[in-house]
Amino acid sequence: MTLIDQARALDAADPLAFARARFDLPEGTIYLDGNSLGALPAAAPARLAEVISNEWGKDLIASWNKHQWIEAPHRVAALLGPILGARADELLIAESTSINLFKLVAAAARARPGRTVILTEIGNFPTDRYMIDGAAGLLGLEVRAVAPDELAGAIDTDTALVTLTHVDYRSGARRDMATVNRAAKAAGAFNLWDLSHSAGALGLDLNGLSCDLAVGCGYKYLNGGPGAPAYLFVARDLQHELANPLPGWLGHADPFAFANSYAPADGIRRFLSGTPSILGLAALECGLATFDGVEMAKVEAKGGALGDLFIAAIEQGCGGAVGIASPRDSTARGSHVSLTHPKAYAVMQALIAQRVVGDFRAPDVLRFGFAPLYNRFEDVVRAGEILADIITAGTWDQPHFHQRQAVT
Amino acid sequence: MTLIDQARALDAADPLAFARARFDLPEGTIYLDGNSLGALPAAAPARLAEVISNEWGKDLIASWNKHQWIEAPHRVAALLGPILGARADELLIAESTSINLFKLVAAAARARPGRTVILTEIGNFPTDRYMIDGAAGLLGLEVRAVAPDELAGAIDTDTALVTLTHVDYRSGARRDMATVNRAAKAAGAFNLWDLSHSAGALGLDLNGLSCDLAVGCGYKYLNGGPGAPAYLFVARDLQHELANPLPGWLGHADPFAFANSYAPADGIRRFLSGTPSILGLAALECGLATFDGVEMAKVEAKGGALGDLFIAAIEQGCGGAVGIASPRDSTARGSHVSLTHPKAYAVMQALIAQRVVGDFRAPDVLRFGFAPLYNRFEDVVRAGEILADIITAGTWDQPHFHQRQAVT
Repeated sequence: MTLIDQARALDAADPLAFARARFDLPEGTIYLDGNSLGALPAAAPARLAEVISNEWGKDLIASWNKHQWIEAPHRVAALLGPILGARADELLIAESTSINLFKLVAAAARARPGRTVILTEIGNFPTDRYMIDGAAGLLGLEVRAVAPDELAGAIDTDTALVTLTHVDYRSGARRDMATVNRAAKAAGAFNLWDLSHSAGALGLDLNGLSCDLAVGCGYKYLNGGPGAPAYLFVARDLQHELANPLPGWLGHADPFAFANSYAPADGIRRFLSGTPSILGLAALECGLATFDGVEMAKVEAKGGALGDLFIAAIEQGCGGAVGIASPRDSTARGSHVSLTHPKAYAVMQALIAQRVVGDFRAPDVLRFGFAPLYNRFEDVVRAGEILADIITAGTWDQPHFHQRQAVT
Repeated sequence: MTLIDQARALDAADPLAFARARFDLPEGTIYLDGNSLGALPAAAPARLAEVISNEWGKDLIASWNKHQWIEAPHRVAALLGPILGARADELLIAESTSINLFKLVAAAARARPGRTVILTEIGNFPTDRYMIDGAAGLLGLEVRAVAPDELAGAIDTDTALVTLTHVDYRSGARRDMATVNRAAKAAGAFNLWDLSHSAGALGLDLNGLSCDLAVGCGYKYLNGGPGAPAYLFVARDLQHELANPLPGWLGHADPFAFANSYAPADGIRRFLSGTPSILGLAALECGLATFDGVEMAKVEAKGGALGDLFIAAIEQGCGGAVGIASPRDSTARGSHVSLTHPKAYAVMQALIAQRVVGDFRAPDVLRFGFAPLYNRFEDVVRAGEILADIITAGTWDQPHFHQRQAVT
């Protein structure tokens, strides 16, 4: 059976095939960059038009109550609960991933006075590393970055917090959350995960795996739109002992009393800071609604199978001309696969000219994300074929030579 | 001449009358809460639909370059330049007012090591106070809050920073920026202004008045929509000596190099943190475009005159039954007027039932904002008459007794 026949059989049997209709996808494009910017939910244009023209335009200030804008950070967060394996009252939509990471790093470190180290990995996502360094600088703490295989041994009683990205943005390698959390807990340290590259693609279980803290972004697999507001997670039992280092009015116990001094709200709400973006929340709500009734175990299984089939297509079509920079074992991967090629940038431009959209990461990485709600098995085999044509012909700097069209 | 005749004459001669057509205002409502949530720019629905359906939906990830999303925080900020009296390269759209305030408080304080005091006023806007206290707590500094008339005398060589709100959110009283800035500079301290209640209503001149730092929100007189992204200002000469305490990837000198360690961008860009909200920026761009070709001196003059006429209508209609809690002298006010009444909450509900929209601030304040781009003189006289009817009849708890309609 050819790979394309296998792909068609998998599509025909796909229990998530129904979800593709929940998106408005551009015709003629194979979009394999949903790990960077998720596709447009079909419901979003009408919903945003309603929020803009009626809620903002007609009801104006009354909408904070009438359309429950004030509750949106909680209402939208509740949709994340089943996606992350967490309780609604442990989640909040707020700010950006960077800002939320700062909040939780600083909050955790201050809740472990006397412990002087924030532990992370070499190669953690750059903005995470910058924010961790920034928080440590303000707090007078040390950031220790170790190789992944040295992490467990590096956790000790000086460690206030272990913070990692769950799925590596380059290789797609997945960290073992259970093992890290166990080691951190044994040493009395908090764990804090960046889920940006896993939420919406993997079957997460923050509660089951004893996660303390997490953050992540809304615009990748969660389909919340460009620069969507981010989320944060604080395990229920820890909320009372953590203070928001960016204590804005919405996290106050009584925000509309306009009191002169800050008193934190009970529970997760204390981690709110400024006034939330209502347009951003409305778009993210549409993005999260694309997961309605979807089993995350099936999402993870399909994402792994899409990646496996893509790797098979690459190996068949490109042989050794490209490297496979991601784990072969899908259970050790997130939902993207990275390839290496010395002319990766030019190759990606040639691919995009053929309407196969992935992305390039310096110096030599071609990255392809598989969004299980809307990517099809046939798409990834076609993408592999088109990439193989480009590599084989060696004409990545003359992309218009290739006329094979991407399937729609 | 009656007040309504005066109002009609003022409307007929209003050099800003043309700007009202730039908004989509609900018919039959007198909206005097643009100081809390600005009205919908008429261009916003179509522009947002374009960004959502075409830029996000069709061009997807390519839009970061193709539609210059990556430049939006600067492009939109440039529209603020003439509104604030500042240069485009001193301004940035980012995050919320609260988060931006934290950034600049911490940056300024760290640039004056050895100085231990952040000076502010008693009664500064609550969320500002919370964020200032939060930053001081992280940095081990003291916040000193003094009465407005004690401020100048309280600035000394321990003062790292003087931070105030330009227009008081309750009384509408306007602080004397020039005097405060002079006193702060003489003592070697930074000045930092929250312009949320003045930008878009007053003729500001940040450069001319030697402002160092400023922040403000996009959703009040700037018409950027609910929870619009906020802005920050850093005077050109100070940018190189201030470090962003929330150092996210977009403020990196080379964000797409994904380097492991942070190196700040030159200039204002270093104050970016996380990925910006593209929908929020698009809406704010429409809001700021409503100021195109508008002279801010005329905006300030009209706002003052609207407030004066409103006060005259209240005095004529209500006599001593309501207090005037704002300065009578329009040059000492922002663009809102606050009244006091022992049953203020119920009175505001009655007003809203008659489609005159202001807001209530505990315990006894009725607040009315005048947005010079779309509020008319006749509107404020009508609002005063309707309020007088409610107060005189004493039936604020039976609002449907009054059938006088607001003008459209």
